[in-house]
Amino acid sequence: MLSRRPDAIVVTSSHHTKAASQLLGRSGVPVVEIWESAGQPIDHAVGFSNIEVGRAAARHLIDLGHRRIAALGPGQSGEARDFRGEDRMTGFAAALREAGLADDLVVHHGEVLARAPDVEAVFAVSDISAWGALMECQRRGIRVPHDLSLMGFGDFDIGRQCVPALTTVGVDARAIGTRTGELLMTLLNGAPAPQPEIVDMGFRLIPRETTAPASRRRARKAAKGAS
Amino acid sequence: MLSRRPDAIVVTSSHHTKAASQLLGRSGVPVVEIWESAGQPIDHAVGFSNIEVGRAAARHLIDLGHRRIAALGPGQSGEARDFRGEDRMTGFAAALREAGLADDLVVHHGEVLARAPDVEAVFAVSDISAWGALMECQRRGIRVPHDLSLMGFGDFDIGRQCVPALTTVGVDARAIGTRTGELLMTLLNGAPAPQPEIVDMGFRLIPRETTAPASRRRARKAAKGAS
Repeated sequence: MLSRRPDAIVVTSSHHTKAASQLLGRSGVPVVEIWESAGQPIDHAVGFSNIEVGRAAARHLIDLGHRRIAALGPGQSGEARDFRGEDRMTGFAAALREAGLADDLVVHHGEVLARAPDVEAVFAVSDISAWGALMECQRRGIRVPHDLSLMGFGDFDIGRQCVPALTTVGVDARAIGTRTGELLMTLLNGAPAPQPEIVDMGFRLIPRETTAPASRRRARKAAKGAS
Repeated sequence: MLSRRPDAIVVTSSHHTKAASQLLGRSGVPVVEIWESAGQPIDHAVGFSNIEVGRAAARHLIDLGHRRIAALGPGQSGEARDFRGEDRMTGFAAALREAGLADDLVVHHGEVLARAPDVEAVFAVSDISAWGALMECQRRGIRVPHDLSLMGFGDFDIGRQCVPALTTVGVDARAIGTRTGELLMTLLNGAPAPQPEIVDMGFRLIPRETTAPASRRRARKAAKGAS
């Protein structure tokens, strides 16, 4: 790629092999890593923090009153490794622990419904996974959000269109692209090069129909336990 | 593309502009059009008949006893025009007429539920569209397949995973690719060039959970009408 003498390089993610990092660092052209704002960028980064996304998701479910909370993470196989999904899991687990809750249901494979019949809320690594979990709930007769709160990540079409519509976390991909373009134009126009910087574009929690307060169900359960 | 001097060209679809057809025809290299088996190929074609897919879908719904049947076709805007989807609609409408049924619900835009409260069965141009229709039914409290039979095309993941699972028409994309590769190897190995030929790889109807016999509901309706 470098043999084509690009004026600048935009790469997705900031997880590279050591060789790739060195090659990019020595390329002599501006490098912008997009879609992540964590870690130490080679040059510049425009994105958001997946760790903070995980924390925000956990806090949303905790704030609804849920206490037995699960997260369904990405698979962990070789090249397909999803570092960003893992960051979301890390932030999620940290927020659970900070709230004094167990993080034993933050898992990589989706057998949480079979393993923990007492689970009250689930965060899935993406809207696609969350949709899969929603379908599994429909198959098992688990009512979402009445019996189980469920949320995903990414604000994909499938989550907007499905019934009930998925609570999710949205990232403004267009804004990241625009901001990246502006940064490149500045760099290429010979303006004084800003120091390597991280532009955090943030994210937003989008509550829809699949998450609901736990209070009523917990009260009912507690009453049952007491009787 | 031709300036790269390829040994052969594989193109999807057999709908080309006149200029593209002439260019491909005069290119002097073997051209294989895949994914369709209708029409007059430039050289060779490996695919299936979308018109026959439409017919088979209509016959499935007619055989289940439905009489007021709709099809939701592709949009009709400029470059995005979906000729293959339109072929499915054409075959579908023809099969309805051959069965003595009205084809007035074979439409391009999906307002059929609002327009025809008496519709009994719907064929959507793809599993994605069928899934959208399924979600709309869930929103409106229309039970699939109890109140409405619904089917799609393509055997996509979403149709396999959703609840209820979508009845669809499947095409063996892998087999089409393999057959195309074999044909190219024959042509490139200098074997006596077969005459321009169409290889029809067929398709299969995959009944799942979204289509059901009309009989009970029709009987109930008839009883209601009589009372």
